[in-house]
Amino acid sequence: MQYLPPIQDITFDLEHLSQWSELRSLPCYGEFDLADFRAVLGEFGRFCSEVIAPLGPLGDETGSKLHETGVELPEGYKEAYAQFAEMGWQSLPHAQEHGGMGFPRAVGAAATEILNAADMSFGLCPLLTDGAIDALVKNGSEQQKALYLEKLVTGEWSGTMNLTEPQAGSDLARIRTRAERREDGSYAITGTKIFITYGEHALSGNIVHLVLARTPGAPSGPKGLSLFIVPKYLPDAEGGAGARNAATCLSLEHKLGVHASPTTVMEFEGATGFLVGEENRGLEYMFIMMTSARFAVGVQGVAIAERSYQHALAYARERVQSRPVDGSSAESVPIIQHPDVRRMLLRMRATVEGCRALAIATAGWLDLAEHGDGGARDEAAQMAEFLVPLVKGFSTERAVEVASLGVQVHGGMGFIEETGVARFYRDARILPIYEGTTAIQANDLLGRKVLRDRGSVARRFALCVAQIEQELAQAGPEAKAVAERLATARSDFEAGLEYLLEVGRENPNLAYAGSVPFLMLTGNLAAGWQLGRSMLAATEMLARGEDADFMSRKIATASFYAHNILVETAVERMRILHGAHSLLSADV
Amino acid sequence: MQYLPPIQDITFDLEHLSQWSELRSLPCYGEFDLADFRAVLGEFGRFCSEVIAPLGPLGDETGSKLHETGVELPEGYKEAYAQFAEMGWQSLPHAQEHGGMGFPRAVGAAATEILNAADMSFGLCPLLTDGAIDALVKNGSEQQKALYLEKLVTGEWSGTMNLTEPQAGSDLARIRTRAERREDGSYAITGTKIFITYGEHALSGNIVHLVLARTPGAPSGPKGLSLFIVPKYLPDAEGGAGARNAATCLSLEHKLGVHASPTTVMEFEGATGFLVGEENRGLEYMFIMMTSARFAVGVQGVAIAERSYQHALAYARERVQSRPVDGSSAESVPIIQHPDVRRMLLRMRATVEGCRALAIATAGWLDLAEHGDGGARDEAAQMAEFLVPLVKGFSTERAVEVASLGVQVHGGMGFIEETGVARFYRDARILPIYEGTTAIQANDLLGRKVLRDRGSVARRFALCVAQIEQELAQAGPEAKAVAERLATARSDFEAGLEYLLEVGRENPNLAYAGSVPFLMLTGNLAAGWQLGRSMLAATEMLARGEDADFMSRKIATASFYAHNILVETAVERMRILHGAHSLLSADV
Repeated sequence: MQYLPPIQDITFDLEHLSQWSELRSLPCYGEFDLADFRAVLGEFGRFCSEVIAPLGPLGDETGSKLHETGVELPEGYKEAYAQFAEMGWQSLPHAQEHGGMGFPRAVGAAATEILNAADMSFGLCPLLTDGAIDALVKNGSEQQKALYLEKLVTGEWSGTMNLTEPQAGSDLARIRTRAERREDGSYAITGTKIFITYGEHALSGNIVHLVLARTPGAPSGPKGLSLFIVPKYLPDAEGGAGARNAATCLSLEHKLGVHASPTTVMEFEGATGFLVGEENRGLEYMFIMMTSARFAVGVQGVAIAERSYQHALAYARERVQSRPVDGSSAESVPIIQHPDVRRMLLRMRATVEGCRALAIATAGWLDLAEHGDGGARDEAAQMAEFLVPLVKGFSTERAVEVASLGVQVHGGMGFIEETGVARFYRDARILPIYEGTTAIQANDLLGRKVLRDRGSVARRFALCVAQIEQELAQAGPEAKAVAERLATARSDFEAGLEYLLEVGRENPNLAYAGSVPFLMLTGNLAAGWQLGRSMLAATEMLARGEDADFMSRKIATASFYAHNILVETAVERMRILHGAHSLLSADV
Repeated sequence: MQYLPPIQDITFDLEHLSQWSELRSLPCYGEFDLADFRAVLGEFGRFCSEVIAPLGPLGDETGSKLHETGVELPEGYKEAYAQFAEMGWQSLPHAQEHGGMGFPRAVGAAATEILNAADMSFGLCPLLTDGAIDALVKNGSEQQKALYLEKLVTGEWSGTMNLTEPQAGSDLARIRTRAERREDGSYAITGTKIFITYGEHALSGNIVHLVLARTPGAPSGPKGLSLFIVPKYLPDAEGGAGARNAATCLSLEHKLGVHASPTTVMEFEGATGFLVGEENRGLEYMFIMMTSARFAVGVQGVAIAERSYQHALAYARERVQSRPVDGSSAESVPIIQHPDVRRMLLRMRATVEGCRALAIATAGWLDLAEHGDGGARDEAAQMAEFLVPLVKGFSTERAVEVASLGVQVHGGMGFIEETGVARFYRDARILPIYEGTTAIQANDLLGRKVLRDRGSVARRFALCVAQIEQELAQAGPEAKAVAERLATARSDFEAGLEYLLEVGRENPNLAYAGSVPFLMLTGNLAAGWQLGRSMLAATEMLARGEDADFMSRKIATASFYAHNILVETAVERMRILHGAHSLLSADV
């Protein structure tokens, strides 16, 4: 079935949840209005639905292949990428000073969702390029920016992240790739990197590898890593793709999903690399790219969940099977009329909308953190840093669940590959793993974002939730019931938070045994909070008589979320406060 | 890595949870003792580990193929099946009067687990044969038993279930396959059946299809279905495989998992069928096969979860990555030392052990229901009927979750097919679908096992749980804490039960909106109850000084389950009592 970009849902979130009222007053966004967002996303949505989405099934079936001449992508990818770049879509969220369209990050997030819903295997290439752009904008020299940025922003060249080595996955301290300084100031990079997404292909004219490596005599551990630009083709005198660099794809991985996306083993044999910033600060720079990529992977979760939901919904409307349980018909009915199929579909939809709302709100704070000023800027930065591990960790775990429900709604047909939903179930499974597993996100949340400042930002987050509870309590009985559920979930959060702050110093094992439960609790509350905001906005729009069907649906989704999904915080609280003891005392 | 059959865990459950103390006094089991069980399962385990398990990876990669000459299974399957039959393993749980070894069902369940853990694609063939044997034992004529039973019990012939048609999946009332009586008393069967597991292959000398079809003038709906034996080869005068019947495999499905298991589209073109029992009672007979198969599919869930757990545990012990969070080492450590990896592994193990305990206990009641006498027999039958949808519904949903955790523990390596755990994630996904989806199990539980008798058996189940709580409360502080969690979970169950009984009549939609939450709540409580029994037995054995490490592990697993998994009943209760309203009022 055709992918239908959910433009109305997305623009609703952009209008009401992305901090647009603050962002619009920033000079960099002064020229935009919501109609521009709707127009550009509508246009991009058409392109993705008509050109990108049809690549998916065949791409999954044939996958990428490594030949002596290089990596061959499945049929149609090269032409589609050429169009994608030609139309300027890579440039959408990037600054105008680097040749971008300069749309806000929240609009960029929406575009990332649409592209990855159309085909996640395709979407990975631009996603990595976005990350490389962010890293170079922040830390590249003027010369590096001049050489690489514009070509990356246009999509003429693409980018990669080269972190992982066989012995260094989550543990970047163990990276062994060497970088030796040459007389001309460049470095000779030698080592093997694995799991490099789009590490080799011919979609773009050049591939800009960002590589973490260790210089001779550098401190051991993570503080001895430096970041290098290692282009597949060295820039020539005109800045074009020149001589081939000694960076070779040794093999492609045979994966559970995203078959069309080439996951490469890269061999650097004295390849020429150019230092970014200063030596030994590579991890710090790479974190910029990682934050960008982590956020985007969370959005991929929204994308794959939305896609799976669209398939399940269409199937449930057309598949006729069994009479209704209430005896209201003597004939079999479309399965969407059966309560449990409704349950699954609403769980899928509410999860998608909750995770999308959280991502778009977070994108707004990321923007304010970059372009806002003074205290508001710092507050936005702290909020964004607190929320990014939730967007990544919570939304991707939920995406796996939603993709699994998508199979279940289809019954036996869901297990047949030609139906198409099994692909989403396979593709989704990488999301809680790459760019930092869920446990890594949870450690980031607990260690860097909660224990380090003794819960100060976490408590501010809780106050923001409480604020929405108060507004909901005034907005009618259905909203009041949601407010009550939010308050309960917030008290679960606060209980977990205070406990973790208490034991975190003296007994880190006990605290970290609860880190993923805490991440899931906090993510759930954050999504519920954003759906609370969504409910308030929809209630107001409904009172103004705007689009009653759509607004009623928004309200119903927020209610469903509160009473069926948000309630799960109670269990995570118990796990944090009581479950961790039995976890640590058992032999494994 | 090699599959290690968990013989010690299984025999512990057989001894303490399978109602063995009652079963051993039945005449049919008088000659057995626990040492026999251990010996036969040990022997079967070696066979499965050495002969069957190695088939899996290649079987998954190549899959079954349809040629003009028939279906070809992957390399090694034919030889392995021949050995399986030759050694008599098919006969293990079947009655001695039909040529079986006559072991109790619980031992049969253990064998089903071991075989399916070794290779679920292989295990499906014997699983369906077991179901066909059960159906014929109960409802076949003496002549039919003479012709078919012994050959099925030896595995010389295999069996299938032919229910599903394109328009008739969960809704068997829509079956259209026709059966017209011929003068010789046989029937001409005409129609198309889909999703027929092992519908065509050459492993066995004949395939005995059990087919649901409709005779001319039969009532419409489910009460007009009759059951037929449609052998691939008609028995000849000596009872051997004779003339080819008009039952043809049209195609094989291209599936997400269990690639080696041929899932066929079967075309019956006036094929010769033999009526089982009476016309129009086919669904009733088929339910015997379905109960047997549903129970066995639940056991497949245990199997695939155990296998995934073994892989994850081995990887976590050997993969070295990152320093411990408590700073206890300056070096990176095996990831099993990180709290969140422990959390995942313990969740996997506790889930496996809880679901296995539930399956083995249920098998004991199934046996007492068949061979016991008087009131005890009826009580056992009611208990078994109440528990079978939990074994199927709860354990298979959990199997998907455990298989997903198995991928997660492996990080990026989990997404690489050669690692092997991704296969379990793909294979597991069919379990909550075939032999009745989770929603079908939940409807069975709520409609037939709870509402029909107004909760009488459900309340008896709760009393059994309460009994174990009392015993645990006397067995020391750790057991007392488990008793308290069990009591809370039981009160969640009772609240859900009373609510569903109250609304079930007047508002079936509201009740059935909570049917899957109720199934998951009840399954969780039932598994927790059995782990409570397990904890009591292990505590006693420990006090006697028997195998301290193993018994301590059993106790720790029960504690972990109670404090980290059983706690989820609180959420299901909220969904049943409060979530269903927002579920029904939302537009989908």
